[in-house]
Amino acid sequence: MQVIESPQEMQNWSRAQSRAGFRIGLVPTMGFLHEGHLSLVRKARELCDAVVVSIFVNPIQFGEGEDYDRYPRDLSRDLGLLQKEGVDAVFTPTVKSMYPEKEQTTVEPVAGMENKMCGRNRPGHFRGVTTVVSKLFNICLPDVAFFGQKDAQQALIIEKMVRDLNFPVRIVKGEIIREPDGLAMSSRNVYLSPEDREKATVLYRSLLMARDLINRGEREPSRVREAMLEMIKQVNGAQVDYVEIYNAFDLSELEEIRGQVLLALAVRFGTTRLIDNLLVEV
Amino acid sequence: MQVIESPQEMQNWSRAQSRAGFRIGLVPTMGFLHEGHLSLVRKARELCDAVVVSIFVNPIQFGEGEDYDRYPRDLSRDLGLLQKEGVDAVFTPTVKSMYPEKEQTTVEPVAGMENKMCGRNRPGHFRGVTTVVSKLFNICLPDVAFFGQKDAQQALIIEKMVRDLNFPVRIVKGEIIREPDGLAMSSRNVYLSPEDREKATVLYRSLLMARDLINRGEREPSRVREAMLEMIKQVNGAQVDYVEIYNAFDLSELEEIRGQVLLALAVRFGTTRLIDNLLVEV
Repeated sequence: MQVIESPQEMQNWSRAQSRAGFRIGLVPTMGFLHEGHLSLVRKARELCDAVVVSIFVNPIQFGEGEDYDRYPRDLSRDLGLLQKEGVDAVFTPTVKSMYPEKEQTTVEPVAGMENKMCGRNRPGHFRGVTTVVSKLFNICLPDVAFFGQKDAQQALIIEKMVRDLNFPVRIVKGEIIREPDGLAMSSRNVYLSPEDREKATVLYRSLLMARDLINRGEREPSRVREAMLEMIKQVNGAQVDYVEIYNAFDLSELEEIRGQVLLALAVRFGTTRLIDNLLVEV
Repeated sequence: MQVIESPQEMQNWSRAQSRAGFRIGLVPTMGFLHEGHLSLVRKARELCDAVVVSIFVNPIQFGEGEDYDRYPRDLSRDLGLLQKEGVDAVFTPTVKSMYPEKEQTTVEPVAGMENKMCGRNRPGHFRGVTTVVSKLFNICLPDVAFFGQKDAQQALIIEKMVRDLNFPVRIVKGEIIREPDGLAMSSRNVYLSPEDREKATVLYRSLLMARDLINRGEREPSRVREAMLEMIKQVNGAQVDYVEIYNAFDLSELEEIRGQVLLALAVRFGTTRLIDNLLVEV
């Protein structure tokens, strides 16, 4: 397994793989890997000849006062896990090599997909994501790139970017991997105190309850939303960031629940912000 | 020579060339080709194995009230010229195939390079350029892309974009090709009346005069600028859009004329806007 720090070297490596006729699969991550990431790596292994995992905590997708500095990092543990999965190359650039100049050309997502859900309280977050993903695509030259469905809005914004800018990359989404009690796996789960860890199951429980409501015939988005808010309110210390229900393809508003629907929420426990979502087909 | 309309087909063609080990050269144009374009095609022929010329009048780089609708077009003449140059493929997409969705992810140049010169009176122009060039790079997959030095600001903004977003593309700039009387070749020259065509030589004449001033020791940007303005003012009907002097690498302001300096100007004759520039080394 190659561990490559320099963007130029990484691009050379990828170009050589590509010239040799190998299909490259890229799994972009911020490290501190869990089963969610590893399930994407296994998918990549299945569909591609050469698997690249990038590990880069991208500063420009964090807002002021967010957890960039304390975001959990453990490179040597990550490398051990990836080695076991048979990954071909790990790309671990420095911030300086990714952003060498003071000002930076950016990639701007469409407003209608960016300014809601995680984008509402994290202005500039998705611009940071589309910009770094464009860079990673151009450096790692993947034929296929793998994103987790846990970041549903991110995956949709990246799919839109790939269509709009004609990136020669196929996007594959991996389903949410959960702990036995239903909590979606996330690098940020380590922030939780044992009490909050237990309370955090309310995210998934509220989603399952909402799906139940819908399956029993509820078609009014506001009523489903209110039932979820009500359930979360019962949990001491859980602060709702958002609970939203959108068209699952373009995040447009719904007059009634119909077709492929995305139920999504973000909840804070102290300074830790967790997200989760569920796709429901009506 | 292949003439390809569909972005998907173009991408397939380019990918096949690339897989076969050929170096692809791309010359992006808006058509109505002149010697300036053809000199870039010849450079591409020299440096690459497969030459692609794109012809696309890109609506999103034109502002309201600009000349998008009347921009000169003559595809069959263009194809004849390119055939003679031994071009391998011409990419002629429709607007609908390039912008199929209502809203579009864009590529945003850095403000400090965009908001001056041609960007000052054409807001959004360079965002349209960087967005379409990103699309063309992702569709045509060039190893080398060729841009004319006549659009000096455009070339610098694209070079910055390539560095910032790590496009695996080398940028080669071709010098300005001029008519015998010095007028820089431009598809827009056909708009000029015979009288204005003659007057239009003032752009290049003012640049040569400015270079002379500098060569004779002038180091004060404002004095060089004023001398150019004064000369243009003598020409009846010539309306200055801008006359500017910048650092030739990053378009930063100059306290004194020193190093590689870009002298650039835009002048209107009636509704026709012409640009020109000169690099001066001190």
